[in-house]
Amino acid sequence: MRRLLLTGFEPFQQLAANSSGDVAQFLDQKEIGGYRIVGRVLPVVFEEAGSLMERWMEEVTPAAVLSLGLAAGRCEITPERFALNWQEGPDSSGSACPGRKIEPEGDAAYYTTLPLQRIVERMKGYGLPASISNTAGVYVCNYIFYQTLHRLHRREETLPAGFIHLPAGHTLLLKTEGLAYPSWPEGDLIRGVSLAIEAMGAG
Amino acid sequence: MRRLLLTGFEPFQQLAANSSGDVAQFLDQKEIGGYRIVGRVLPVVFEEAGSLMERWMEEVTPAAVLSLGLAAGRCEITPERFALNWQEGPDSSGSACPGRKIEPEGDAAYYTTLPLQRIVERMKGYGLPASISNTAGVYVCNYIFYQTLHRLHRREETLPAGFIHLPAGHTLLLKTEGLAYPSWPEGDLIRGVSLAIEAMGAG
Amino acid sequence: MRRLLLTGFEPFQQLAANSSGDVAQFLDQKEIGGYRIVGRVLPVVFEEAGSLMERWMEEVTPAAVLSLGLAAGRCEITPERFALNWQEGPDSSGSACPGRKIEPEGDAAYYTTLPLQRIVERMKGYGLPASISNTAGVYVCNYIFYQTLHRLHRREETLPAGFIHLPAGHTLLLKTEGLAYPSWPEGDLIRGVSLAIEAMGAG
Amino acid sequence: MRRLLLTGFEPFQQLAANSSGDVAQFLDQKEIGGYRIVGRVLPVVFEEAGSLMERWMEEVTPAAVLSLGLAAGRCEITPERFALNWQEGPDSSGSACPGRKIEPEGDAAYYTTLPLQRIVERMKGYGLPASISNTAGVYVCNYIFYQTLHRLHRREETLPAGFIHLPAGHTLLLKTEGLAYPSWPEGDLIRGVSLAIEAMGAG
Repeated sequence: MRRLLLTGFEPFQQLAANSSGDVAQFLDQKEIGGYRIVGRVLPVVFEEAGSLMERWMEEVTPAAVLSLGLAAGRCEITPERFALNWQEGPDSSGSACPGRKIEPEGDAAYYTTLPLQRIVERMKGYGLPASISNTAGVYVCNYIFYQTLHRLHRREETLPAGFIHLPAGHTLLLKTEGLAYPSWPEGDLIRGVSLAIEAMGAG
Repeated sequence: MRRLLLTGFEPFQQLAANSSGDVAQFLDQKEIGGYRIVGRVLPVVFEEAGSLMERWMEEVTPAAVLSLGLAAGRCEITPERFALNWQEGPDSSGSACPGRKIEPEGDAAYYTTLPLQRIVERMKGYGLPASISNTAGVYVCNYIFYQTLHRLHRREETLPAGFIHLPAGHTLLLKTEGLAYPSWPEGDLIRGVSLAIEAMGAG
Repeated sequence: MRRLLLTGFEPFQQLAANSSGDVAQFLDQKEIGGYRIVGRVLPVVFEEAGSLMERWMEEVTPAAVLSLGLAAGRCEITPERFALNWQEGPDSSGSACPGRKIEPEGDAAYYTTLPLQRIVERMKGYGLPASISNTAGVYVCNYIFYQTLHRLHRREETLPAGFIHLPAGHTLLLKTEGLAYPSWPEGDLIRGVSLAIEAMGAG
Repeated sequence: MRRLLLTGFEPFQQLAANSSGDVAQFLDQKEIGGYRIVGRVLPVVFEEAGSLMERWMEEVTPAAVLSLGLAAGRCEITPERFALNWQEGPDSSGSACPGRKIEPEGDAAYYTTLPLQRIVERMKGYGLPASISNTAGVYVCNYIFYQTLHRLHRREETLPAGFIHLPAGHTLLLKTEGLAYPSWPEGDLIRGVSLAIEAMGAG
């Protein structure tokens, strides 16, 4: 069966939970949309996350790649259109990237190869608010997203590959007093990602 | 069996759905926490809502009163502490209240008689983000809230009575393109209100 | 000449500047609207701020009292209508107030005795966005506001007294990387408070 | 003297004022940073704005191009790094662009050729909050920004060219009841843009 590499992230900064890693872990080994899911959790550290991603691409030889991240503050599930050639900000390693191109010779941006419209329509059809985002930021989320597309571009491979930002899960708010982020029950986040994977497989 | 008057509101302004009315309707005639629920839906019109509330209080002779409202933009279920003696803003009647006291001779504010802390703890214990709010605004939500407490104060009655603001339901976002409010699946909103009623009944 | 006690606050928590204290200090000893200003800066500590306020009221015997606070996140200058009988939250003393009435026997709330509408109109007439707020929170700002009105109520005095929340000054954003609050140049904040004092004196 | 084409936009949608057009108009014919400013105001209509921009580039033969736009909701002046090859949304013509590439054969994105870091440092040095943004949206602002950079790329010209988003001016809030956007006095916005132009000329 075709494999789909599904990644999420660990908790980071002051946030005590990360819905993206929880979903990736939960769906590991499941069969969805004709894919067997290989679920993995990345640290929120630029280069370390990049190396792990590189290694898993070699090991898993996936037919599709979907990376997830937490977008604290967003109200909907948002698949991303553009991966930008820029990285900036302090990561969980304790050091801060002052702002530079991810790939000095890479394109300024790449388009996702996910079927964005189909993904969004499917989630909405099942009752989950979703919309396309044009911006994945310039943090580790975008870094992983850009790296993956740059790799496919360089190798002239055409897998469906991309990034989806998730709202926080209720767990995050329950663990941290005084946090005001939109949040969803974890079950809805898992269901949303499953629907996205089905839409990827239906292509 | 003791009756609990549970009210919510109709959709208003540009918002195509109102989770508070949907929940009140859904829970009508259910038995929760030792109460039989009498669920009713109010129009978002100051005086009309006030008159209906008054009439239902007479008809239902409730042992407890819980009013619900939509707080578009809030991330949690928030029971309210203070009802303020002020009403202001355009309502669904098409006219706008320019700002005045609800009861010229009433107190500046009343405390809710709901067990706020117990309600919040119960919802959080079941996985739903919740916190106490000190401010129900000065719109029709606060108007109903103040009227109810003023009536009890005037009659020296001591029922548990108060107001809970709900986040939007997913339905609202699905019905309106481009709306960015935190939203929950309707099932979570219903569950949250049921837990609040159980906490009221457990006193 | 009549004296007006004008208070602001020190910087607190992670915020490296507090526009309210800066304005109070800047206007100290100025003559505005028929008042000589006595400008003072309070620590963001519940009881300590309350004691200082009490002492200054005795020393200054003011004809009017205006307290200022920073409302990080607000876009306008907002005079407050209601002071609530509630205090809650961690202050700069290092300890956290778990939530209790400020005055166990005091009213649930008091109305300000400031001419709110006249103040807002005057600021807008001079080009500064302003609107009335119904909520000063339940932190040290509201604490000082409530204490002052409770004192006047207890003594049956009828001075113009109240609270105005200010947006951040540009300085706060310049001092702290990555802070996203609406901010104004300090000169506009000073001008706004002067206009408010003129409106108070014009009564 | 070298000419700098400076553009802003007309008011659009429900917003009764547009600080970007006001600033462009105010600075028209001024001499700043070794440039004579040619200030122009664009309609918020995709193709029409594009055609005007094209014509002005021919007429003015500028040595530098700076386009301004209103970013209602932003707290700082934000020069933009990336122009994205995407346009979407309803414009002032009454029709809505459903989402498509601006230039089917163009790059996914271009980097600005403005000295972003120098611009930001100069504004902050003069007391104005500023930071680099990575995202100009996918509306008419980004459309003009992308078109300009695509034209320079196609012709292999290397002018300093780019886009700066401004906060709202106080005027916008004063003209519209109930709008809650961060706003600055218009003088600060003019000063910020002048400082940016000085930084462009200092290269």
